[in-house]
Amino acid sequence: MQCEIITIGDEILIGQVVDTNSAWMAKELNLAGISVKQITSVSDDKQHIMNALNEARTRVDLILITGGLGPTKDDITKATLCEYFNTTLVRNWDVFREIKKVFDSRDLPYTDINQKQADVPVNCKVIMNTKGTAPGMWFEEFGKVFISMPGVPHEMMAMMSNFVIPKLKEHFETPYILHQTILVQGIGESFLSERIASWEDALPKGFKLAYLPAIGTLRLRLSATGEDKTKQEKQMKDLIDKLTPIISQYIYSYEDETMEQIVGRLLKEKGMKLSTAESCTGGYIAHRITSVPGSSAYFEGSLITYSYEIKENILGVKKETLEQYGAVSEQVVLAMAEAAREQFKTDYSIAASGIAGPSGGTNEKPVGTVWIAISTPHKTFAKRYQFGNDRERNIIRTSITALNLLRVELLKD
Amino acid sequence: MQCEIITIGDEILIGQVVDTNSAWMAKELNLAGISVKQITSVSDDKQHIMNALNEARTRVDLILITGGLGPTKDDITKATLCEYFNTTLVRNWDVFREIKKVFDSRDLPYTDINQKQADVPVNCKVIMNTKGTAPGMWFEEFGKVFISMPGVPHEMMAMMSNFVIPKLKEHFETPYILHQTILVQGIGESFLSERIASWEDALPKGFKLAYLPAIGTLRLRLSATGEDKTKQEKQMKDLIDKLTPIISQYIYSYEDETMEQIVGRLLKEKGMKLSTAESCTGGYIAHRITSVPGSSAYFEGSLITYSYEIKENILGVKKETLEQYGAVSEQVVLAMAEAAREQFKTDYSIAASGIAGPSGGTNEKPVGTVWIAISTPHKTFAKRYQFGNDRERNIIRTSITALNLLRVELLKD
Repeated sequence: MQCEIITIGDEILIGQVVDTNSAWMAKELNLAGISVKQITSVSDDKQHIMNALNEARTRVDLILITGGLGPTKDDITKATLCEYFNTTLVRNWDVFREIKKVFDSRDLPYTDINQKQADVPVNCKVIMNTKGTAPGMWFEEFGKVFISMPGVPHEMMAMMSNFVIPKLKEHFETPYILHQTILVQGIGESFLSERIASWEDALPKGFKLAYLPAIGTLRLRLSATGEDKTKQEKQMKDLIDKLTPIISQYIYSYEDETMEQIVGRLLKEKGMKLSTAESCTGGYIAHRITSVPGSSAYFEGSLITYSYEIKENILGVKKETLEQYGAVSEQVVLAMAEAAREQFKTDYSIAASGIAGPSGGTNEKPVGTVWIAISTPHKTFAKRYQFGNDRERNIIRTSITALNLLRVELLKD
Repeated sequence: MQCEIITIGDEILIGQVVDTNSAWMAKELNLAGISVKQITSVSDDKQHIMNALNEARTRVDLILITGGLGPTKDDITKATLCEYFNTTLVRNWDVFREIKKVFDSRDLPYTDINQKQADVPVNCKVIMNTKGTAPGMWFEEFGKVFISMPGVPHEMMAMMSNFVIPKLKEHFETPYILHQTILVQGIGESFLSERIASWEDALPKGFKLAYLPAIGTLRLRLSATGEDKTKQEKQMKDLIDKLTPIISQYIYSYEDETMEQIVGRLLKEKGMKLSTAESCTGGYIAHRITSVPGSSAYFEGSLITYSYEIKENILGVKKETLEQYGAVSEQVVLAMAEAAREQFKTDYSIAASGIAGPSGGTNEKPVGTVWIAISTPHKTFAKRYQFGNDRERNIIRTSITALNLLRVELLKD
C-alpha cells in the first residue's frame, strides 16, 4: 500500500518554512503500514496543483494533501479541488456551527471570510478540525482516495491521529506491522550503533531497526512485518530481552513517553514534590516539567538566577562560594540545588549552571561546560558535562540530562 | 527562471529525517532570482529517480538533485545519472587526490569503496567537495542544466555557496526578487486579511502577499519580481507606507527577528534590566528571553510560582490577595509583577497567571483565561486574555503576548 504526500504553499518553495509536516506524516503512515512513495511540494497555483494530483494518481492509490486551506486569498486548495473533481461548493452546517462556537467563545465577530470556511465540495466527506477552523476533506474519485488537510501542523496532526489513520486502516488492507520503541539517553548514535552491531546484524528476516535521533536523546524503533503475528510478537520480545543488557544503563523507556512525563509519573506515584534552580537553562527545565498537564500536583516552582546577585540574595548561595569557585562550579550548583529544596520545601530539586554559549567560555570552562546537581531526601550530588557550542542544543541537552538524573534517583528511592 | 529540487533518500520518505536542505536551497536560489517551481522527494530507486528527472525537465530548465552520493550500497544516484544520460563512469584524478588527502590526514585506509567516489560520469563537470568526499556534478543535457550534490547539509551548502550559485548567475539571466517581511501580533489571520483587503486587492502586477501564521504571531511577506529594480523598490516602499497605518498597532517588526530579540535589543539600548514572575507559563517566558545569546546583560532572573505557598512565601504576594481573588486574577498578577521587580531589583518585569489547561477551568475562569501584568519604572498594569483549550498553545501565546506588551512599553519609555 503506497501513498503520496503533496504539500501546497509558496512559503515552502521560497524556503521560508521547512516542511516538517511531511516527515511527521510519513512516520505515522509507515507505522500504519502505508509507505510513502513520493513527497511533492508545489506552489499555491491551480494548474500546478492539478498537475501534481494527476501525476500522483498514476503512481499511488492514496494522495494526502496539506496546506492552502486558510481563509485568505492565497489559499486556493479548496477551489482547485472543486474544479479538479468537477463539482461545486456547498455549506456544511456542522462545520459552520463548530466554527461559530469558536468565534462566540472568544467573543469575536464571525465574518464572511470565516463563514466561507464552512463551504466544502459536494463530493467530499468532511473531516472535523478540532484544533482550528478549516475542515479537512476526504474524497473517493477515479478509484483513488484523496485527503486534504490544513497545513498548520497541530491541526493536521490531530486530524491524522483521530480520524485519517484509523479510517485508512479500515479502508485499505494494510499489512500487519509490529513496532517496539526503545528510548535511550546519554549515548551518541554512532557509539550506540557500534555497541549493538552484532545484535543488529543478527536481526531475523522481516525485522528492521531505525535510529531516530533527537537532541539529547535517541529513539530506536524495531519494526517487524509479516504474516505470523504470534511468532513475531515472541521474536520481538526475545530481541528486546537480548538488547536490554547491552545498553541497559542508557534505556529510559520502552514506551513513547517524554522524560518529563516519566519524571512526573514517578513523583505523583510517590506523592513527592519537585523544584528547580536554573542558571544556564533559563527556565527550560521548569518549562518541560510544566508542559505536562497536571504538573501542579508535584511541581512547586523554580528560581531562575541569571546573575550572581540573584543567586546570592534570593536563592541564598553564599557569596564566598560564588567568588571562590565561580557560578559554573560543582560547589555552586550543589548549593543551588540544596537552596531550592529548602526554599521551595520540596523532596527533590534540580539545579543547573553552565556556559550555554555561543560565547563566554574560558580555557578551563569552555562553552558547553555544564554542572548539574540533584538533591534528594537522602543526598545531593553534582556531575559535570561537556556539551557543544550551540546555545539551543546545550540548553535542551542539559535539561534532558538533568531530568534523566532525577529519574534514576526516583527509581532508586 | 525556474528550477526544481529533487531530494533522494528513503530516510526522508519514512520520516526519519526532516528535509531541511530544500528550504535552505530554496532561500538561496530565491535570493539569486531563481524561483523553485517544485520540490520532489523520491526514494533510492533507479526507475523512480529517472521518472522524477523526466517530469522535472518538462517543467523547468534547471534541476538540482541532492542525496544518494554516499559510498554505501543504497546510494545509487551516480549510477542512475550515468544511465539517464546514457554515459559511463571515468575516474577523476583531481577528486581522487583530494579524497586521498582526507584519508591520509586521518590515518585511515583508502579503501576500494572510497576510491570509487572519484569516478564520475564522462559528461559532467566536477564540483569539488570541500567538506567531504563525494564530488558534486554539473550536467548540461537536453538543453537543461542538472546539478547533483551530496545530501549532507554542510557539504551541499558549501558547494551551493562557493560554486553553484555564482555559476548559475553566470549561466542564466536571472531577474531579481524583492521581499519585505512584516511581523504582526495580536490579530488573527482572517481579521487581518479583512482589514487589509482593499490594500491587498490593489497590489500592482508582479507583487504578491503571503500570510505565514505561527502560534501567537503572523508573518506577512510581500514579494515582487520584475525587470525594473529601481521602480519596484520604490513601489515596495510606497506599498509598505500605505499598509502601515492600517495595521500599525499590530506590527512589531519589518525584519526577520523574534519578539525576544527585539525586547532584548531595546533593553540593551536603554541599559535596563528585566525579571519575570511566572505561573501558568512555567518558565517559558524566561526561556524565550534567555534563548537570545547575551541575554545575561539585561535579564536578572525569574520566579516560577506554581503553588499558592510559593507565591506567598518566596515571591511575597499577600495571603489575603490570593485568598480573596484567587491566583488567576488581576490583583494577584499585579502583585506578582511588582514583587518580581522589587525582589530582582529590575527596571521592568513581566508576570503571568492563568489556566493553561487542558483542565482546571471554571465557569468564571474557563481554560485559556490568562492575566498578564507588566511593571515599568512608571506604572504597573494588567490585561486579561481568553485563549483556547490547548496547553502548549496557551503557554506560547501568553509568552509572546507578554513580550509584546513589554515591547510597547519599552518603546514609549
